Amino acid sequence: MITLYTWTTPNGRKPAIMLEELGVPYQVRAVNIGKDEQFAPSFLAIAPNNKIPAIVDEDAEGGPLPIFESGAILTYLAEKHGRFLAPSGRARYKALEWLHWQIGGLGPMLGQLGFFGVRSKDKSPLAIDRFVEESDRLLTVMDKQLASSTYLAGDDYTIADIACYPWTIAATITLKDVLAESLATKPSVHRWLQTVGERPAVKRGMTIPKL
Amino acid sequence: MITLYTWTTPNGRKPAIMLEELGVPYQVRAVNIGKDEQFAPSFLAIAPNNKIPAIVDEDAEGGPLPIFESGAILTYLAEKHGRFLAPSGRARYKALEWLHWQIGGLGPMLGQLGFFGVRSKDKSPLAIDRFVEESDRLLTVMDKQLASSTYLAGDDYTIADIACYPWTIAATITLKDVLAESLATKPSVHRWLQTVGERPAVKRGMTIPKL
Ligand SMILES: N[C@@H](CCC(=O)N[C@@H](CS)C(=O)NCC(=O)O)C(=O)O
Ligand SMILES: N[C@@H](CCC(=O)N[C@@H](CS)C(=O)NCC(=O)O)C(=O)O
Repeated sequence: MITLYTWTTPNGRKPAIMLEELGVPYQVRAVNIGKDEQFAPSFLAIAPNNKIPAIVDEDAEGGPLPIFESGAILTYLAEKHGRFLAPSGRARYKALEWLHWQIGGLGPMLGQLGFFGVRSKDKSPLAIDRFVEESDRLLTVMDKQLASSTYLAGDDYTIADIACYPWTIAATITLKDVLAESLATKPSVHRWLQTVGERPAVKRGMTIPKL
Repeated sequence: MITLYTWTTPNGRKPAIMLEELGVPYQVRAVNIGKDEQFAPSFLAIAPNNKIPAIVDEDAEGGPLPIFESGAILTYLAEKHGRFLAPSGRARYKALEWLHWQIGGLGPMLGQLGFFGVRSKDKSPLAIDRFVEESDRLLTVMDKQLASSTYLAGDDYTIADIACYPWTIAATITLKDVLAESLATKPSVHRWLQTVGERPAVKRGMTIPKL
């Protein structure tokens, strides 16, 4: 059994979608980051970076295996079950390219835009401009990629799509006021959002954790 | 032969160190990001995200294989040569945790601190405070991890150390004015910087590209 420590945020939904896609048994522990539960010593023992998501694979060889960082979790689950990431060859590294692009680019930059452009009461025009511009640049890169292939890494749905979906859908909802202009010119992103969003496992994963 | 497209920045040095560690033949193409060379169509064909580093493995099965995103490049080279990343088991996922932690945390946050705290002429106290605080938090997490293990993922030097080294050393040089207080209380980070920095391949990698 896998235990998933998560919350109702884009990073938290990635492993939830993956577990739903795999159809393997798992249990959910909600970690309310609005109440600082990510700083509880029992959670820090699993996730020393005090961020969700994290998992513990209770049945791993050698005893329970904790893993933090969504990119590491997705890779672990993909390799354990042999799904959504080719075991070798070009397709594998195309998927890892876009996975890392999400982890290092789309995620942190939309995350900063959420802080400076939406959540912060103090406003910094310097920071808002910077993160609107970088988010638009990233969405433009994504739109170009998706104009020539069904999924981010090519013809197959992979952990790169699973990583990017919750962030991209968040861009159209919680960030829509600051990104309206950018999103209006990204037809291939919208086509992909629809394709991925129709998957039953994605729909279910997006409702985890249930509160 | 591998062709490495890179520049004199922390992300650019990661694959240079890895190639030096592996001791495999490679050639360097400098992409001067100060002169916008990352937007040249020939580079975008390899790295559609217009960022260095990127590689092309000219000898890959099926023809030249381009890879962008430093995390994907390090994983590719580690898997191709069977070094600096365990092929399976716990050690593999401990290394991938800290690799992703660098790609999604340490790198982007120190990068933003470099912009707001050092390079930008306009100053946003809101942004400077935010990125100083987050950088200090990340360095504290790293220091705790390195207090109980030689390398980030345990007893073995891995691609997680290779990914973190150029950014952490940059924190002590280009970011030293904004991070002095934080760095003064990170003894294990300094011990690790010294251990990793003494490796001949790291020393050589940190001089790439030669201009
Ligand atoms: N790179 C990490 C980012 C995780 C992350 O930023 N998690 C946020 C919620 S989306 C969090 O737990 N924040 C709580 C905190 O920073 O204290 C990953 O992909 O897992
Ligand atoms: N997540 C990427 C980040 C790469 C990155 O930020 N590269 C910077 C230099 S350190 C760059 O090429 N900047 C040029 C630009 O953004 O136009 C990676 O790890 O490869």
